[in-house]
Amino acid sequence: MIGSDEFETRVRASFARQKAMQTLGVAITRIAAGEVEFAMPFAPDFTQQHGFLHAGTVATVLDSACGYAAFTVMAPEAAVMTIEFKANFLAPAKGENFRFVGKVLKAGRTVTVCDAQAFGRDAGNEKLIATMTATIMAVTGRAGIEQ
Amino acid sequence: MIGSDEFETRVRASFARQKAMQTLGVAITRIAAGEVEFAMPFAPDFTQQHGFLHAGTVATVLDSACGYAAFTVMAPEAAVMTIEFKANFLAPAKGENFRFVGKVLKAGRTVTVCDAQAFGRDAGNEKLIATMTATIMAVTGRAGIEQ
Amino acid sequence: MIGSDEFETRVRASFARQKAMQTLGVAITRIAAGEVEFAMPFAPDFTQQHGFLHAGTVATVLDSACGYAAFTVMAPEAAVMTIEFKANFLAPAKGENFRFVGKVLKAGRTVTVCDAQAFGRDAGNEKLIATMTATIMAVTGRAGIEQ
Amino acid sequence: MIGSDEFETRVRASFARQKAMQTLGVAITRIAAGEVEFAMPFAPDFTQQHGFLHAGTVATVLDSACGYAAFTVMAPEAAVMTIEFKANFLAPAKGENFRFVGKVLKAGRTVTVCDAQAFGRDAGNEKLIATMTATIMAVTGRAGIEQ
Repeated sequence: MIGSDEFETRVRASFARQKAMQTLGVAITRIAAGEVEFAMPFAPDFTQQHGFLHAGTVATVLDSACGYAAFTVMAPEAAVMTIEFKANFLAPAKGENFRFVGKVLKAGRTVTVCDAQAFGRDAGNEKLIATMTATIMAVTGRAGIEQ
Repeated sequence: MIGSDEFETRVRASFARQKAMQTLGVAITRIAAGEVEFAMPFAPDFTQQHGFLHAGTVATVLDSACGYAAFTVMAPEAAVMTIEFKANFLAPAKGENFRFVGKVLKAGRTVTVCDAQAFGRDAGNEKLIATMTATIMAVTGRAGIEQ
Repeated sequence: MIGSDEFETRVRASFARQKAMQTLGVAITRIAAGEVEFAMPFAPDFTQQHGFLHAGTVATVLDSACGYAAFTVMAPEAAVMTIEFKANFLAPAKGENFRFVGKVLKAGRTVTVCDAQAFGRDAGNEKLIATMTATIMAVTGRAGIEQ
Repeated sequence: MIGSDEFETRVRASFARQKAMQTLGVAITRIAAGEVEFAMPFAPDFTQQHGFLHAGTVATVLDSACGYAAFTVMAPEAAVMTIEFKANFLAPAKGENFRFVGKVLKAGRTVTVCDAQAFGRDAGNEKLIATMTATIMAVTGRAGIEQ
């Protein structure tokens, strides 16, 4: 069994190297086996034409939530790569800040499927704004990462 | 029939209000009826843990390419909203710069379906790195945009 | 508010006209506001090359589960049309029989998003074999159905 | 290099074991490296409530088209499994008969991504009715097929 200290350390180290997460101001708020939670403030630099977060910005954090949820259940030496994802946008991405939850739906040796949800938060109220299903592949060795 | 001047002006005006596009350094390189092309330089601030563009960054530009392709064929008073998108990541997002093409696959009164492709470019060579299919909804009136 | 008798009658009447459901031997086991459940026996005529249910067969029932879940929350005069769906296949579709659950994730005036799950059942044990997210459109008038 | 005789024989042998294809009356009309084409007559037993082919029926043949396109470029000993697919339904599935084309978009050692299109045909006219993107995994050994 994988100890929580072990995967938590790996997730935090990898997350720290994801420049996109730092640029967007995303923080890890929880790490568990098969599940991660992130928080992010509203970011005016990443909006669309109506002033809400761009759907792609929301998808970026949902994708990382899926990838790191998968990372918690994969072999320590594996790297994770997103093969594909699908997102539905249910409401405009507005809020003072946002919460993202990624969960493993099915863990496999090579392929892991994750679901994630994004919530907009305003004055303590939370609203589901988007969902994602992502297929994540475990790759070992630099060759794999380079495809 | 919609004159090209008309939709080109609308696309450029809306694009200029998408802060996310400016932040990522995306430029419009072509606008035609049912099709747009964007260019973007490599952006270290939007990378994942291996130093390639984050899948979500790629998806952000693909989504805008789909949305503006749809915008060229919609009624002038309509706003566009992404209902959902699905992206496949075929190769690591590396390159000196990137090219994105969005095309209308099926235009409808309410719902328009678009395909988009992302290419990484290095020393004049181009490689397909990701594809997207997006479902875009035309909404009229502020109520629609607010859902 | 929509009375349960009303939508249940509509769902059953429409389902009875879906020849594909009869051909596959699918039965409605539950109808509630925003949720339906179907059952189906193993069907050798709808298998793939390894003798499991074909992924498309599973998707067919998942799609109907999504469509009828959406149907329960739509205006009585509206017809439902699947705009798109995405399914992940998590385990081989084997079992003596199968259970399908469709639920409304977000109901809208025009567009409703649903999630569905498929389970294989053997000797009382149940296993999640596939999931779907579907975008369903409400169309009114024959013109809409004909697109 | 894989000889065409070799993969054509493998595709035909596997296709003949897909009971679902026989039940739907699907025939192979072309096999090439990375591409297959199927034909199917209108099938009243597989329709939805308005008398058109059920979206799931269309998806079933699209999925097989993707799977066999992938099969042509995979190692002879590998079995193919659909990890996930996403389909957009662009027009009602009506016609005297239907044509389906599946193509490899990106072939990989483990994961292959395919696109497919479905066309309805009436009195010699052809109309695009649906598209699919599918992620196909090569699995070797019975253990893989059983997941």
